[in-house]
Amino acid sequence: MIPVPKGFRCAVAEAGFKYVKRNDLTVILSDTPCVWAATLTRNLFQAAPVLVIKKRLHSATLCRGVVINAGQANACTGEQGLADCRKALELTGRALDLNMEDLLPASTGVIGDRIKLDAWEKALPTLRGSLGKATALDAARAIMTTDKYPKMSWRVLNLSCGEVRVLGMAKGAGMICPNMATMLGFIICDAGVDQEWWRATLKACVDKSFNRITVDGDTSTNDCVLALANAQAGKVVEKKNLNVLAKALGEVCSELAGLIVQDAEGGTKVIHIRVSGAKNHRQAELAARAVGHSPLVKTAMYGQDPNWGRIVAALGRSGADFAPNHVSVALAGQTIFHLGAPVPMDWDNLLAATLRKQDLRMDISLGAGPGRYLLLASDLTEEYIRINAKYRT
Amino acid sequence: MIPVPKGFRCAVAEAGFKYVKRNDLTVILSDTPCVWAATLTRNLFQAAPVLVIKKRLHSATLCRGVVINAGQANACTGEQGLADCRKALELTGRALDLNMEDLLPASTGVIGDRIKLDAWEKALPTLRGSLGKATALDAARAIMTTDKYPKMSWRVLNLSCGEVRVLGMAKGAGMICPNMATMLGFIICDAGVDQEWWRATLKACVDKSFNRITVDGDTSTNDCVLALANAQAGKVVEKKNLNVLAKALGEVCSELAGLIVQDAEGGTKVIHIRVSGAKNHRQAELAARAVGHSPLVKTAMYGQDPNWGRIVAALGRSGADFAPNHVSVALAGQTIFHLGAPVPMDWDNLLAATLRKQDLRMDISLGAGPGRYLLLASDLTEEYIRINAKYRT
Repeated sequence: MIPVPKGFRCAVAEAGFKYVKRNDLTVILSDTPCVWAATLTRNLFQAAPVLVIKKRLHSATLCRGVVINAGQANACTGEQGLADCRKALELTGRALDLNMEDLLPASTGVIGDRIKLDAWEKALPTLRGSLGKATALDAARAIMTTDKYPKMSWRVLNLSCGEVRVLGMAKGAGMICPNMATMLGFIICDAGVDQEWWRATLKACVDKSFNRITVDGDTSTNDCVLALANAQAGKVVEKKNLNVLAKALGEVCSELAGLIVQDAEGGTKVIHIRVSGAKNHRQAELAARAVGHSPLVKTAMYGQDPNWGRIVAALGRSGADFAPNHVSVALAGQTIFHLGAPVPMDWDNLLAATLRKQDLRMDISLGAGPGRYLLLASDLTEEYIRINAKYRT
Repeated sequence: MIPVPKGFRCAVAEAGFKYVKRNDLTVILSDTPCVWAATLTRNLFQAAPVLVIKKRLHSATLCRGVVINAGQANACTGEQGLADCRKALELTGRALDLNMEDLLPASTGVIGDRIKLDAWEKALPTLRGSLGKATALDAARAIMTTDKYPKMSWRVLNLSCGEVRVLGMAKGAGMICPNMATMLGFIICDAGVDQEWWRATLKACVDKSFNRITVDGDTSTNDCVLALANAQAGKVVEKKNLNVLAKALGEVCSELAGLIVQDAEGGTKVIHIRVSGAKNHRQAELAARAVGHSPLVKTAMYGQDPNWGRIVAALGRSGADFAPNHVSVALAGQTIFHLGAPVPMDWDNLLAATLRKQDLRMDISLGAGPGRYLLLASDLTEEYIRINAKYRT
């Protein structure tokens, strides 16, 4: 049984936005007002729902829930897209006896396509009827685009104020979706927390989870993680327990982020790139991203090839500052490159079994300082090309 | 007939470094001392031959020619690699009655592999015997690794000092070579020019040609363009003619760079990404590179899909600063995205024929300033994945 935070209900409906014979309109609703937090894409082209949320980001307003459509991203749709988004909120609010300000919007799908308001409106009676009957798993399924499976993660905490539940769901590594759509994440929690703390904590958690994954480096126009907390678990969380809740939120974010990389388009590997010894954290990130985005490294990992030459060449062009002869690289715990020189062993055979596994650890030490970074990256396969070359046409 | 600059001869031999039944050791030699210029990889991991040249880069010494081996990159080989490189120069120099300082070295092949000095030494009598018999085309072939065809470009100029010839050759888009090897370029010229001018001019030409191509963004450890001028055409080039010579050198560099993208591993397209209207040139470059490196844009171009959503999403994450509603994008001369919004036309059909062509022009206008940049990029195909996933193992 998935432990849904108290006072939250889900609703789904088949609006027929794009996909056939599946739900594509989703509401996650709290019976009472929630403090909420959001992290939004940094792409300069921001989708209409992102812009709508952005406007309210620094306000102290509460909300009741989120509404998500799958099929059209409502990005690069200009003023019309903003009007469509507001209209959809208004219609949905009316159907659920809410104000439009009670709902936060999210869209996923093809960039440039407007949401289909007619289909949306027609689906509202079904949506209303399913409220409280749809499960969290139904919701996690209804927000998918080309994801192969729904992605959920949860924690139940015993705090001094009582039992608290954190439940998260996410959809497909947006950057790799064939329609170049979106990474969306939704987290609900029944803890009683202060909105400012909740927002700061979500930001910190997202920075260490969703912001540290890459499939193809293509940040989307719709990326959005929304977190709602409705205080239905009972009393407000005591200060001494906040770190426990923050840790749980962080773990839920990390698990969802990991699931997104695991379900990367065409992906067969989750590469855990751990950089240490950089001059600072920013340089560690530069190094990790150069390796994690390198098509040559990604294809080598796909080919189960311990090709350290490609890893160090990516490090060397990353912009991170270090001395080549201080660099070491370990694959799956085995040091294959030590202080600037290869370790002469038959790695092809020694690592053959390990490199077949889905999760692959890559430790990189730059020997230049205290900077560290962890990035989760997918590999690059023919299937990725097939999906993305053939998608629209 | 390829117009070889006066006083230059080529030599090739089959040393058996890695490839079977083809020449893999090459010398391009001038009868008289040359002024020379070199542009070297900026990767922090620099191959031994790059380091050897780097040491002499700011000296006024002249040289007689270059010696190139294909099969081992001699990169990440430490002190041993440097010693190997010097030994190879010494052996080759002795065989050709030269000092080792007369020759500049270049290597291409697998990173981490030492050059095979035994094979090198054994091939020297053949190399010596072929001097003056091997053609420039033989040399262009012998420096290839997995290139599908040799790459050459030349100009013959009628200057006030007489006829001058510029001949260039290059090998495979190093960044995309399955062995992650190297981009190498060699240019010879019989003009009489000042060394400082020659070096500054080569740098400017390379900045606008070789440095403006991308296949997979993976800058190699061996990238190197060497240009030699031996003054055998006759008198020194008059000052008023220097711009003509610089233009020819630039054209030769651009043609070779274009040929490299055309021969990109698995590539089917040469995408000419022209960014204008950026705040400055650096931002134009950021925008062009974000688009040119985007796997989603590259797979869309491979799929002949006018998917502007992927292009603008790449621009939006590029780091370039602009207002989304000032951005326009044209594909093959057709404006598909205008001032922040899609131009509603049946582009899939309207552009179908054009998108089948190998060369594809993509014009991006950011509407933020005078910054411009042109980048040539390849597309991304299943064949690229196959080659790079299966190469070593």
